[in-house]
Amino acid sequence: MPIELYWGSGSPYAWRVLLALEYKRLPYTSHLLQFSKQEHKSPQMLAMNFRGRVPVLKDGDYVVFESVAILYYLDQKYPDPPLFGRTPEEAGVVMRVICEYQAYAEPHVMKIARAFFSTQPQPIRPDELAEAVQGIASEARSIEGRLAHSDWVVGETLTAADLVIYPSLQLLLRTLKKQTAAELSSRFLPLEVQYPALSRWSARMEALPGYDKTYPPHWLEK
Amino acid sequence: MPIELYWGSGSPYAWRVLLALEYKRLPYTSHLLQFSKQEHKSPQMLAMNFRGRVPVLKDGDYVVFESVAILYYLDQKYPDPPLFGRTPEEAGVVMRVICEYQAYAEPHVMKIARAFFSTQPQPIRPDELAEAVQGIASEARSIEGRLAHSDWVVGETLTAADLVIYPSLQLLLRTLKKQTAAELSSRFLPLEVQYPALSRWSARMEALPGYDKTYPPHWLEK
Repeated sequence: MPIELYWGSGSPYAWRVLLALEYKRLPYTSHLLQFSKQEHKSPQMLAMNFRGRVPVLKDGDYVVFESVAILYYLDQKYPDPPLFGRTPEEAGVVMRVICEYQAYAEPHVMKIARAFFSTQPQPIRPDELAEAVQGIASEARSIEGRLAHSDWVVGETLTAADLVIYPSLQLLLRTLKKQTAAELSSRFLPLEVQYPALSRWSARMEALPGYDKTYPPHWLEK
Repeated sequence: MPIELYWGSGSPYAWRVLLALEYKRLPYTSHLLQFSKQEHKSPQMLAMNFRGRVPVLKDGDYVVFESVAILYYLDQKYPDPPLFGRTPEEAGVVMRVICEYQAYAEPHVMKIARAFFSTQPQPIRPDELAEAVQGIASEARSIEGRLAHSDWVVGETLTAADLVIYPSLQLLLRTLKKQTAAELSSRFLPLEVQYPALSRWSARMEALPGYDKTYPPHWLEK
């Protein structure tokens, strides 16, 4: 019985898991849920994750959710190729970079995305926006520094750190393309000029086998 | 050369690591830094973690920070007894519960602690406070449910999930004892009445060998 993945288009969390499944070449059944129809809050979904959030991964009778936990489960269950490092030292760095991204970058990205991009944009105070931009710029600079010395965020091969950061960066870039975000985008774009190593790394991610299958389908439409 | 731990009294993040070191019975040299003297921002500390945050762990030449990453490194390097589960399935649940705590509970706890307890309390708007209390109550109920069926947060033995949650809970309880937080505390206290399983689990944590050595020293003073 193949792995089953329940996910929604445009969720950076779901995208991480799709990338992991493709990278590990694991067969899976894709259940693309429509957020607009509240399919992620259906009784079947709530029975698996009472929070009604995706991604949710089902492997036989086993259910796991929260994107980093799914990546971790997949890596423990199907260890080749590894996602969380090949030595304890590398494992520590992979987890550290993930923790740093989640603590210092991701909340800002999500705040900006919600403010500019969701179907019901949430207001954001100017001081909140400035703090978010400042936080993202600082973390992006730090990751740019890592990628200036290496093809991947940690070490010489792709790890879970790449999978955690990439979809979130794409969500930010897509948000910056909104007309209403024009002022904001001058802080980050063009990416290849302001963050050349991040830009080359993005291209590297997009050249991974199976990448096209992971791209948010509704982003292709418009 | 023993492990070296750089930490500060009262940091829930540092407390997690102290608990892990004691649980794994690893010898370590303790460097207790004074936040009030900005010792965590010294050139030596910034050279190890440019963010100037603790805990920082040094093992030989290897440096790691971010509390969950330190727990993970220690578990990979010194696997017995394990902290991140004994099977892929258990590993997934341990990581899931940690991710959930970090996403849905910890930010609220830290917001309340900063509002009521720091030396320079930060203002909190009534709607923010209500949201934080609601968030914590909901997550506490969920963990209470887990502990009603098991001695530990995940599975039959202590895991990293216990180590992540316990210090944060203690910080919350200490905050609730502030006179200014009297109204708030009625939402959670007495713990043994409102959250009896959490209360019994706390006692279990406090009976762990070496626990006393991990207790924030400045909390003993007043």
